[in-house]
Amino acid sequence: MAPAIHIGPEAPEHLVRAVQEGGGELVELDAAEAVVWVGDPDALPELPASVKWVQLQSAGIEPWVERIRATPGVKFTTAAGAYAGQVAELALGLLIAGIRNFNQYARAWSWDPQDSGTLSGSTVAVIGAGGIGRELIKRLEPHDVKILAVTRSGRDGTIPVERIGEIWGQADHFVVCAPATEDTRHLIGAPELWVMKPHTWIVNIARGSLIDTEALVQALASRIIGGAALDVTDPEPLPNGHPLWASPHALITPHVANPPSTMARDLARRVQENVRRYAAGEELLAPVNLTQGY
Amino acid sequence: MAPAIHIGPEAPEHLVRAVQEGGGELVELDAAEAVVWVGDPDALPELPASVKWVQLQSAGIEPWVERIRATPGVKFTTAAGAYAGQVAELALGLLIAGIRNFNQYARAWSWDPQDSGTLSGSTVAVIGAGGIGRELIKRLEPHDVKILAVTRSGRDGTIPVERIGEIWGQADHFVVCAPATEDTRHLIGAPELWVMKPHTWIVNIARGSLIDTEALVQALASRIIGGAALDVTDPEPLPNGHPLWASPHALITPHVANPPSTMARDLARRVQENVRRYAAGEELLAPVNLTQGY
Repeated sequence: MAPAIHIGPEAPEHLVRAVQEGGGELVELDAAEAVVWVGDPDALPELPASVKWVQLQSAGIEPWVERIRATPGVKFTTAAGAYAGQVAELALGLLIAGIRNFNQYARAWSWDPQDSGTLSGSTVAVIGAGGIGRELIKRLEPHDVKILAVTRSGRDGTIPVERIGEIWGQADHFVVCAPATEDTRHLIGAPELWVMKPHTWIVNIARGSLIDTEALVQALASRIIGGAALDVTDPEPLPNGHPLWASPHALITPHVANPPSTMARDLARRVQENVRRYAAGEELLAPVNLTQGY
Repeated sequence: MAPAIHIGPEAPEHLVRAVQEGGGELVELDAAEAVVWVGDPDALPELPASVKWVQLQSAGIEPWVERIRATPGVKFTTAAGAYAGQVAELALGLLIAGIRNFNQYARAWSWDPQDSGTLSGSTVAVIGAGGIGRELIKRLEPHDVKILAVTRSGRDGTIPVERIGEIWGQADHFVVCAPATEDTRHLIGAPELWVMKPHTWIVNIARGSLIDTEALVQALASRIIGGAALDVTDPEPLPNGHPLWASPHALITPHVANPPSTMARDLARRVQENVRRYAAGEELLAPVNLTQGY
């Protein structure tokens, strides 16, 4: 039997199609066994007892933690991984842009070539090899680079997080793709920055809190590292007048790793796949794991 | 016997090592059968009759054409292809940077997210699938894109140049990697620009003359296309006050695809390989072909 699924607070056409193509049937909330929720947590009404599963549209769960705790017995899934390719694409773009001085050239009004490094021939540390990290590694592989992947487990030839201290002076560049948890807060601070190489670029597409912003600002001003390309910041949004706006060694993109125009497409793909899995009794993609904080 | 090779006008250490590791012996010009020339054409003295081969350091031969014509019986080789990976890396970086609005974000002083496209899911035309084009295609492949490669021959599933008219309205983005010849001058002009999609980015890492700059400036001002990311321009250097500097839809890098710091490494690799081939009587890499203009 087709699972009875409610989409709310509104039901955009592309998600209706995704649910139907996944084998589901659209119903009102009262009759639903599953909910695809594309609104804020506050807007989600109390769920009828029939609801066993809620699919969220975001990859992170920060605003949802309380609501999920208060709703035991219901499985929540996120869109974690659905946008991983887009985020990895931005990360690679930021890495090349940083290494190649695009931020300075974009601001230039005259022809003034500078020497630069290249991604090719360098060692790139990918911190956090979840969905985004894996998509990034795939995109880095053709670039003649050595990749150091840091993971919680240290499996599959990756570096376990306990040994992360070894990489700061070893890699040429860093891409931060790890989840924001209490353990990863200020993962990169002054002690880490000071052992990095002078040409090092740091890319952060995860969460601003993983980098100690004050320490970073000082490291950039002192030319301790090459630069930082940040899609996420702390604080976020980065306030007007913040020194990172003015640094010639920083490139800020305002949390645009998943542009709205492609987010819809990627969310629809995920909804369709999870509805199919639900109908088939298979494991759902990206179940929320509150004990690990994501 | 080790081939007798002269390096001039000076002999930098990394090239001396490259010649020796390729199996050659360093000699004065008078005793040379081959020359590695890292200076301008004007600085190259008349060659003794013993010289059979000259290795140049550049990938293009524009400044060398007359000298090569005037020196029949000597084989010239360029460094074409030696820097292809670096150039392809820059091209991919410029493509993502353009599609993702980096040029506007780099100039921003406040947090102002905009929607954008993504490379993922798009169709990218690679015009000219020589060394750079092939290196670029390798780097594009993991990005979930459809690639249209345009070549002279149309072999191996590529689109022959006679049918290039089909691609202007078909691809989302274009990367120009074709050699500068009389045939490719203004390959992209007003007629081509006007059939492109409104979100299209054009990347040029070949030569400025392949694009009609005036037509491009008008297309950008009229929002006919999304933008242009140019490592080469016409005129070059792009003069101060040129409208491309001020366009929010243009990103200019000042012909920095091969940064000096890695050019040395890549040239040394090529010199070593060609000396090895010369010593072994094998075909040399990148012989000059004046009839095809490169």
